Amino acid sequence: MNQDFLNQLLTGVRDGKVDVQEALEQLKDFTTKDLGYATVDTHRELRTGYPEVIFGQGKTPEQVAGIIQFMLTLDNNILATRVTAEMYDKVREIYPDALFNPVAKTIAIRKKEIPPPSTYICVITAGTSDLPVAEEAAVTAEIFGNRVERVVDVGVAGIHRLYNKLDVIRRARVNVVVAGMEGALPSIVGGLVDKPVIAVPTSVGYGANFGGLSALLGMLTSCASGTSVVNIDNGFGAGFLASMINRL
Amino acid sequence: MNQDFLNQLLTGVRDGKVDVQEALEQLKDFTTKDLGYATVDTHRELRTGYPEVIFGQGKTPEQVAGIIQFMLTLDNNILATRVTAEMYDKVREIYPDALFNPVAKTIAIRKKEIPPPSTYICVITAGTSDLPVAEEAAVTAEIFGNRVERVVDVGVAGIHRLYNKLDVIRRARVNVVVAGMEGALPSIVGGLVDKPVIAVPTSVGYGANFGGLSALLGMLTSCASGTSVVNIDNGFGAGFLASMINRL
Amino acid sequence: MNQDFLNQLLTGVRDGKVDVQEALEQLKDFTTKDLGYATVDTHRELRTGYPEVIFGQGKTPEQVAGIIQFMLTLDNNILATRVTAEMYDKVREIYPDALFNPVAKTIAIRKKEIPPPSTYICVITAGTSDLPVAEEAAVTAEIFGNRVERVVDVGVAGIHRLYNKLDVIRRARVNVVVAGMEGALPSIVGGLVDKPVIAVPTSVGYGANFGGLSALLGMLTSCASGTSVVNIDNGFGAGFLASMINRL
Amino acid sequence: MNQDFLNQLLTGVRDGKVDVQEALEQLKDFTTKDLGYATVDTHRELRTGYPEVIFGQGKTPEQVAGIIQFMLTLDNNILATRVTAEMYDKVREIYPDALFNPVAKTIAIRKKEIPPPSTYICVITAGTSDLPVAEEAAVTAEIFGNRVERVVDVGVAGIHRLYNKLDVIRRARVNVVVAGMEGALPSIVGGLVDKPVIAVPTSVGYGANFGGLSALLGMLTSCASGTSVVNIDNGFGAGFLASMINRL
Amino acid sequence: MNQDFLNQLLTGVRDGKVDVQEALEQLKDFTTKDLGYATVDTHRELRTGYPEVIFGQGKTPEQVAGIIQFMLTLDNNILATRVTAEMYDKVREIYPDALFNPVAKTIAIRKKEIPPPSTYICVITAGTSDLPVAEEAAVTAEIFGNRVERVVDVGVAGIHRLYNKLDVIRRARVNVVVAGMEGALPSIVGGLVDKPVIAVPTSVGYGANFGGLSALLGMLTSCASGTSVVNIDNGFGAGFLASMINRL
Amino acid sequence: MNQDFLNQLLTGVRDGKVDVQEALEQLKDFTTKDLGYATVDTHRELRTGYPEVIFGQGKTPEQVAGIIQFMLTLDNNILATRVTAEMYDKVREIYPDALFNPVAKTIAIRKKEIPPPSTYICVITAGTSDLPVAEEAAVTAEIFGNRVERVVDVGVAGIHRLYNKLDVIRRARVNVVVAGMEGALPSIVGGLVDKPVIAVPTSVGYGANFGGLSALLGMLTSCASGTSVVNIDNGFGAGFLASMINRL
Amino acid sequence: MNQDFLNQLLTGVRDGKVDVQEALEQLKDFTTKDLGYATVDTHRELRTGYPEVIFGQGKTPEQVAGIIQFMLTLDNNILATRVTAEMYDKVREIYPDALFNPVAKTIAIRKKEIPPPSTYICVITAGTSDLPVAEEAAVTAEIFGNRVERVVDVGVAGIHRLYNKLDVIRRARVNVVVAGMEGALPSIVGGLVDKPVIAVPTSVGYGANFGGLSALLGMLTSCASGTSVVNIDNGFGAGFLASMINRL
Amino acid sequence: MNQDFLNQLLTGVRDGKVDVQEALEQLKDFTTKDLGYATVDTHRELRTGYPEVIFGQGKTPEQVAGIIQFMLTLDNNILATRVTAEMYDKVREIYPDALFNPVAKTIAIRKKEIPPPSTYICVITAGTSDLPVAEEAAVTAEIFGNRVERVVDVGVAGIHRLYNKLDVIRRARVNVVVAGMEGALPSIVGGLVDKPVIAVPTSVGYGANFGGLSALLGMLTSCASGTSVVNIDNGFGAGFLASMINRL
Repeated sequence: MNQDFLNQLLTGVRDGKVDVQEALEQLKDFTTKDLGYATVDTHRELRTGYPEVIFGQGKTPEQVAGIIQFMLTLDNNILATRVTAEMYDKVREIYPDALFNPVAKTIAIRKKEIPPPSTYICVITAGTSDLPVAEEAAVTAEIFGNRVERVVDVGVAGIHRLYNKLDVIRRARVNVVVAGMEGALPSIVGGLVDKPVIAVPTSVGYGANFGGLSALLGMLTSCASGTSVVNIDNGFGAGFLASMINRL
Repeated sequence: MNQDFLNQLLTGVRDGKVDVQEALEQLKDFTTKDLGYATVDTHRELRTGYPEVIFGQGKTPEQVAGIIQFMLTLDNNILATRVTAEMYDKVREIYPDALFNPVAKTIAIRKKEIPPPSTYICVITAGTSDLPVAEEAAVTAEIFGNRVERVVDVGVAGIHRLYNKLDVIRRARVNVVVAGMEGALPSIVGGLVDKPVIAVPTSVGYGANFGGLSALLGMLTSCASGTSVVNIDNGFGAGFLASMINRL
Repeated sequence: MNQDFLNQLLTGVRDGKVDVQEALEQLKDFTTKDLGYATVDTHRELRTGYPEVIFGQGKTPEQVAGIIQFMLTLDNNILATRVTAEMYDKVREIYPDALFNPVAKTIAIRKKEIPPPSTYICVITAGTSDLPVAEEAAVTAEIFGNRVERVVDVGVAGIHRLYNKLDVIRRARVNVVVAGMEGALPSIVGGLVDKPVIAVPTSVGYGANFGGLSALLGMLTSCASGTSVVNIDNGFGAGFLASMINRL
Repeated sequence: MNQDFLNQLLTGVRDGKVDVQEALEQLKDFTTKDLGYATVDTHRELRTGYPEVIFGQGKTPEQVAGIIQFMLTLDNNILATRVTAEMYDKVREIYPDALFNPVAKTIAIRKKEIPPPSTYICVITAGTSDLPVAEEAAVTAEIFGNRVERVVDVGVAGIHRLYNKLDVIRRARVNVVVAGMEGALPSIVGGLVDKPVIAVPTSVGYGANFGGLSALLGMLTSCASGTSVVNIDNGFGAGFLASMINRL
Repeated sequence: MNQDFLNQLLTGVRDGKVDVQEALEQLKDFTTKDLGYATVDTHRELRTGYPEVIFGQGKTPEQVAGIIQFMLTLDNNILATRVTAEMYDKVREIYPDALFNPVAKTIAIRKKEIPPPSTYICVITAGTSDLPVAEEAAVTAEIFGNRVERVVDVGVAGIHRLYNKLDVIRRARVNVVVAGMEGALPSIVGGLVDKPVIAVPTSVGYGANFGGLSALLGMLTSCASGTSVVNIDNGFGAGFLASMINRL
Repeated sequence: MNQDFLNQLLTGVRDGKVDVQEALEQLKDFTTKDLGYATVDTHRELRTGYPEVIFGQGKTPEQVAGIIQFMLTLDNNILATRVTAEMYDKVREIYPDALFNPVAKTIAIRKKEIPPPSTYICVITAGTSDLPVAEEAAVTAEIFGNRVERVVDVGVAGIHRLYNKLDVIRRARVNVVVAGMEGALPSIVGGLVDKPVIAVPTSVGYGANFGGLSALLGMLTSCASGTSVVNIDNGFGAGFLASMINRL
Repeated sequence: MNQDFLNQLLTGVRDGKVDVQEALEQLKDFTTKDLGYATVDTHRELRTGYPEVIFGQGKTPEQVAGIIQFMLTLDNNILATRVTAEMYDKVREIYPDALFNPVAKTIAIRKKEIPPPSTYICVITAGTSDLPVAEEAAVTAEIFGNRVERVVDVGVAGIHRLYNKLDVIRRARVNVVVAGMEGALPSIVGGLVDKPVIAVPTSVGYGANFGGLSALLGMLTSCASGTSVVNIDNGFGAGFLASMINRL
Repeated sequence: MNQDFLNQLLTGVRDGKVDVQEALEQLKDFTTKDLGYATVDTHRELRTGYPEVIFGQGKTPEQVAGIIQFMLTLDNNILATRVTAEMYDKVREIYPDALFNPVAKTIAIRKKEIPPPSTYICVITAGTSDLPVAEEAAVTAEIFGNRVERVVDVGVAGIHRLYNKLDVIRRARVNVVVAGMEGALPSIVGGLVDKPVIAVPTSVGYGANFGGLSALLGMLTSCASGTSVVNIDNGFGAGFLASMINRL
């Protein structure tokens, strides 16, 4: 439920084209929709510019499908993250055109095209194993109307691989840098560009990685300025924030 | 084995209606019952006002059923938490009317109705994934004789969802607030009500959540007064304490 | 040493106004200046758009003054963070107009005015004790050419204090939210605005705060989108990134 | 600014005894008072039944005195916790009758007597070194209108010391149990009473105590029901919550 | 290979009953036996009074059986801990009389009877779920020649259950106390007896238990004297040490 | 107040030598003595065989002296640990013969000689910096009636230093091994003796030592059997337990 | 792509034996090869003396096989670590002579023989369960052209087992010491040899081992000089570094 | 006491030039020297090629001077680390030519010149604040007979500073890389050289640095091969190991 819809409805009422009772009915779920197991925040787009995104983890396939079924009654693109193939099967029953990205573990439903700005977001991964998190970031940024460039496997052990791609990195409006293990790549990128860097630690690694802790602490204590950090493996959060900055 | 039973027995002895030998027999298990693998605390209701509750995790289905079999000889409602469907199957064999709540993972046996006080407990969840813990709290409070109101999925990312339910929250005698991730909801609720808030951190989340640690530390360091915290995912403990406060 | 200087020098050489030998001399320290105890990155402004900032902690007053003395030979504003009064005394000897901010613990030397963009940055603190970190952020943003609005002591225990300031917060191009203890304020702000939120955990608190860990984990696991996090007490990093975003 | 004051003011306006302009002036600071470095929550008593309490740690003596000076214009008792003797000196200049408790590290100003209920709160300490935290709890409960009984140094190494005091403990409406080291005392008390137990871990100890972590984790994982936990060394929080429960 | 064997061999050589070449052959593996994947410490009994015990975890069934096969050539009782049913199947093939304890997860082979001293060891568990660890302790103590008394499920939530068994506890020469969750039971026992207490934290619990950390820290910081701690879930270590003390 | 005293008193009453009223007076403080800030456990010797020991840390000099003043009325040796020179000054005022050990930080008052058994305790330190903790253990063991042998600075970096002292170590009835840093010494000693080893981790070290954590974890996970662990820097606990075992 | 190849190519061009166009084609992938999901660092051998090694964990079997397929076009030996049997099956399809080591979990392809230096590397394990990590180290060292001696199961609980092998250990040019649990073995070895010791903590153990943390911290805080540490379970890193030192 | 001395002594005895009694006297302290508070390992040079080094921290000035006084009777260079000016004053009294390095916090006494090999060690620091740790490494390497090159303040935020020094780095036989904060520099260096890299994490930083933990974990999980790690701030250990490798 977005600004356009609201303007249209209120104009309709003012012009006598929409009955007050009917308008009330439509406005009833204006700020939240109670589904029993979930209270969908239908007001979020008005408030933050973005519709609510479904976090699949910890929900049943039925709950994910139920929330999507309700959101289909609104006029927004829909994104669900951290989904399983089982969830996708349930969703496909109610919306066959839903797209499943098995690497990013996302379901996307595009109901309208959002024209991207001329600038783009660059999503960089330190290693091949970081791809699922990077892809979650890229998919998120794309569904919210952004062009995304991908730079893959340019970690610090062979830093010349990064330099080969410096052009595409430096021309981006914002860089999302995804890295596990020691998580040093955002520090390097941050020292080479004059644009914001969003660092995403991943749980890729073993031993003293402690589930992503080493990369997280490394990124937080980075001595390169212009860098900020999101949660371990939080590709969605990085893609969302990158979209916000790219579309400012 | 509660106060009523004890009064009746002793009165019976005094009035010559109960033989001393028979009374001794009945009193033998007065404070504990040794089952070999468990020492049931039959004295707890007298001492704390509440019968012992069975913690299913780490026990075999046979052990759970065995403890329930003994407790059925007493005149109390019975609650087992953190149970599996397999445990329920064993229990149903000895007591077909036992109720299994698959969300809360509880088995409940109601042998007597406990009249609830006029006040009620409100159980609030930040997200859909927190429901199992919240349901454990609600089921626990209900079997100990309380009316429970449920408010679902009103986390801080869309704080207006909470405001829509402020009436039911403010009128409760005590609020149980269940939240994972950053666990901020109890702080908000605690700043809006003049009644105790019991905060329950959940292990819902990933990455820097570290199995519920982020929510736990957040709730412990909350700057809202009137809030206290129970263990991560401890819906039972919250429901029990809420019952104690509601029935004061 | 910035782009303008470089253009001017090379044009001078081309036009025969600057002798090649002289140009070489000036270019000698073009990318780094070795001071024995420090290798000043004179190339940083060209590369990242911002001159190097001095991190005072762990340096001797003589080292801080020595680095500033060299940087005064360049045509940039100078910022030193985490400085002591003793450091300031040394700096004042070589540059009497240096400004010391005793709350933010910064030394600032303004050699040129940077015209700010029409948009502004909002720096929000949860409590009075968070002021030093917030002030470091504000001072940093200001010296890099930004207008800053300050909103003080609007933590979640009295959330209406935040709502009173919602206008100034919502109109900002980027919000810096500084909070200790449970660190819940960025989650609330992030759910109310459609612009990036930079969360700064502080070490304000005690006990289960563990030196800022509770606020840090809370902010990282925030369920509000559009939020990213910098190191505990890192006001500088937040102000720097906010400047980058505000001046995009 | 409490309910009584508000009723009186509005009645005065209705009855023409208070000029509207004058009422507006008085209502201007109704919900918050901006002091520059602090936004005092003057609305809290209406909302939560309790006036705001000043947390001294991290504030300057001038800030503490400034906030108290403003709060003196309202008709409430005033409590400041985690204060220093230096803060007290500043406060005494503006209000000579302020009371300083050097063990609890509190400043209290009693402007009105709050009649306590017939029930009382029992504050129990495991060891002598836990006294400062326990005293903070007791002082807090007393200023909010409660009778407090103190039981000192009855830790689990000599559990009979606790049994000697069982009467005063069992008759309390709520028990606050303060313990450091392994923090086992709340588990014992929780197993002996039928009333809520508020557990306060303290940082008393050394080595594997890790600043109170051992007591905190022990209390959170307690197998005694009816127990909840506040932050390490948070005597204020425990006293506040105990007051809330005792005055239900 | 123990003292008796060595005496006999050397006496045999002295008395001309054993050929030197034959003695050399027997002595070849006197201190270690190299199995390729393991270096069995055949000298341990001479040095520490106890033969080596096999730690099954992380070994293949073939390796466990292979080590046992070699140890059968010596004249000692054999104990393997942390074994699986699959390991037991392999061992049974080479020694059908080997005993498997499915609760303790041990394999025991008794080749000689060790006469126990008159004193005994008491193994106490806080809860039913602690039984596997307690049983590992008891089995270990028994195979090394000790009488063991078991006291089950007497945790601090119902402390009178402990008092009912105080006689058997106080008469033991050493107590092994096994507890998970907050791990408070050893503190209580330690305050009631005048004999050593060996505390065994278990990983029983959830949430803030953090895999046994809460019990471990609680036991280490216990304010009851005469208590020491072994690793989380280390029933074997406790049983071994208890045997050492009981047989002093 | 020990068994002897009690026998004498009761015999006196029986024989008419002690007036009942007088006996009552003497028995009033039989189990505890309430000093306001402390509840002295006068019953402990009867229960555990050892009088209560004063833990100085966190107490005021006045409180330490006050507790000692009361304990002087009983017929026991007195030990206070973790004391300061300031505490000692207070104690000397009331008992000039009190002994202060500035390395161990103990105050000892010997009112009676306890005849030691023929066996002895060996206290071993890995390094010179571990001496204060080792001395606390030795002083504790000595005041409770034990002979102590000291072996100093024989850490694993030069393991032959240990072998030089193997005789005195192997002949001890129990070994206390004090080590910081990696805490490996108890593992080595445990593999060489057939008697209990009490491992004491110390906070000696830096960096990844994390306040003694490295030594603590190392000792807990030791693969040498017969070893148990006390809290970091807990020399008292080790000395106390060693005394218990040596005097069995 | 190594130095030899480069010399040959350039000489060929100089001598007119290689066409420039052809040389360009061969040089195209000189520093990196982009496979879409991976950017292979073909320049590494020139830069660091060693070809890139494939880290299998987190990659799909297809990705591992794809990278190997490309690397087969170069003239290097190939090593992949942390591989599964499933990965090996894919690799065998494209290169039947690939060798799989099921203990070390490595795939090795030897395309050329590297003559080892006269010195050798000694790989020592504390226990049988440490073998997989030790084998990863040995296999790595061997494929890079080193002779390796293995010493198995000589942990500190029976330290004489180590002394039996002292000759082979002392004659090595560098020792790799692999140990879990308390990780004390490198300290002992470091105190006995005059050559570098590379310590490898393993996650072998349970409880306070916390996934290898105890061994890691123990090795880092070792008081034996000449020792350095690699990540938990990082046999590859140790074997690689040992090779570097052995071939200096 | 080194190999030369021993040869000379034994030859003297063989040739009748040294009396047996005199030789015995000299050999008495051959392996250890007991000073009461320390057992000096006089045998270490024979065993490990290096004399014992004094770790000052935790020792009294008297103890440090006492150990040095004894070591002066031997024919070795002497190094003490982590010393204070107060310790130096004590040492100067007995040996006026002792050298104090106030940055490295070391005392050095050179009694003989050790000819360095032709290769050298390069000590690299990420920032100015890391200098004390780097200097400890350099001083250690120098006293053991090595040439050291220093490269200062070339951290990853301005990575071109490192490239400017690549020649001196690549020609070193071993690199010691000292870095705090995110500790990324060793990863970069490790990817650029074909020689061993010794990584030294420092406690330089704040917040999520947690006393050096971020740098430590980052270095341990580094994806650059050929790198190993010593304890946080352990400059001595790094310099010692570098010397061992450089002098192989």
